[in-house]
Amino acid sequence: MLDHTQRGQVEVVLVRPRNPLNIGAAARAMANFGFTRLTVVAPYAPHWREARSAVGAPDLLRNAPEAATLAEAVSGCSFVAGTATLARRQPDQAAVQIQQLAPLLAGKLGNGARAALVFGSEKHGLTRDDLSYCHVLVEIPTQPSQPSMNLGQAVAVCLYELSRGSGALNRQAAPQEPSTGSAGSNAPPAPSGSLDLLARVIEETMGASGHSPEAMRAANQLDLRLLLRRLAFTETDARRALRLFRRILWRLRGSQSRRGP
Amino acid sequence: MLDHTQRGQVEVVLVRPRNPLNIGAAARAMANFGFTRLTVVAPYAPHWREARSAVGAPDLLRNAPEAATLAEAVSGCSFVAGTATLARRQPDQAAVQIQQLAPLLAGKLGNGARAALVFGSEKHGLTRDDLSYCHVLVEIPTQPSQPSMNLGQAVAVCLYELSRGSGALNRQAAPQEPSTGSAGSNAPPAPSGSLDLLARVIEETMGASGHSPEAMRAANQLDLRLLLRRLAFTETDARRALRLFRRILWRLRGSQSRRGP
Repeated sequence: MLDHTQRGQVEVVLVRPRNPLNIGAAARAMANFGFTRLTVVAPYAPHWREARSAVGAPDLLRNAPEAATLAEAVSGCSFVAGTATLARRQPDQAAVQIQQLAPLLAGKLGNGARAALVFGSEKHGLTRDDLSYCHVLVEIPTQPSQPSMNLGQAVAVCLYELSRGSGALNRQAAPQEPSTGSAGSNAPPAPSGSLDLLARVIEETMGASGHSPEAMRAANQLDLRLLLRRLAFTETDARRALRLFRRILWRLRGSQSRRGP
Repeated sequence: MLDHTQRGQVEVVLVRPRNPLNIGAAARAMANFGFTRLTVVAPYAPHWREARSAVGAPDLLRNAPEAATLAEAVSGCSFVAGTATLARRQPDQAAVQIQQLAPLLAGKLGNGARAALVFGSEKHGLTRDDLSYCHVLVEIPTQPSQPSMNLGQAVAVCLYELSRGSGALNRQAAPQEPSTGSAGSNAPPAPSGSLDLLARVIEETMGASGHSPEAMRAANQLDLRLLLRRLAFTETDARRALRLFRRILWRLRGSQSRRGP
């Protein structure tokens, strides 16, 4: 994965994009995954800088340089990767899968060097001429039946992959206490004794409600113990279940006793 | 990663999507990464099936069922994962990073079981009520400064991640979840609809036994849904619990009616 500094050295380059919504979507994905440098080459629509799809990234879009050619856009980059879906032709340069790109890029970004990740137009992708500026061709593994991705989605997937597993984004799984009274996954598990107490009250409820005949008692006890352990009750869960079953039992017995002899 | 068959068992569910272009973009990403089942819950725009953004996936979009509620959409799924960007609130259930989802799902998809990956609306994401139908909350690691992703891009990133590394490794056996050390680990998990039925009967029992006042009803419903999912009931467990609570309910009501006016 690329760290924060490395991501700042990677230029995202869109070549001849037609739909400003896709340019904005690319900018939004850049903001989502911590990339800051966007260059747009020969865009089709003049007012692309105002694309409303650049949610959270209007400045990034406003400040993006516009270049006339790909050659100009990547002139300051010492390593250029061009994206493609499944290559139908024989590529002129090495092709790698997107998963392999982060370590490859990381090795090229020493001493403040800059690199570019280039995306072609919605309709035709990168031409052979475009690709001639690229050191490597990067493939996103898609289904052979439908290889062509939407531009904004392709940018999102690539930038996600480049930042995947990075320290900055990968929040440590801090123990999280749930907001409700309900116990979450990190709450302490119920000790065996609590489960046994619960099991006893459930058994009594089964008996009092006529659910299980006396002959089944031993088998039910075993099943219930296994079940309660498999369900991984927390201490809080066990207490709540216990309250409910005690209440039920009290009502069942209360109403029986009221029935009288 | 999920293999071809496993991807066919995963339902992509969009809850209250506003923009048909995003629904189409989700369908396109599904076709790119080999997913085939889409359900749309309470969409805002009536003509969403005609979204032109569903490049390469018009049939997938045309045949996608529309559900009135999330409960209905996932009723046949035994494992439900809800997506969120950086959680601003404390989640009620376990949260995992998207990278951890594929092995988790693979362990749940044995014996033809179905799972769902749920996305919320563009504006608000999934509500707390939506999330109460989820066994786990999935986070896409994004920048804290701009956590919110475009819906179509979020779907693309998640489906890319779930199919990441498939292909060469496709033929490997699906990783099994570590057994929780007991009999039930191979038994099929209860589908969402069975849990909803059980929750209703438990609620009625709570009411009939005087355990919970009317005012607490909504909060209890939410808690109960979360609890039943966290406990990982198998289908057999759910049926057994249902039988017990129905019996209790019958006795509680029977004894009440016998008390007479």
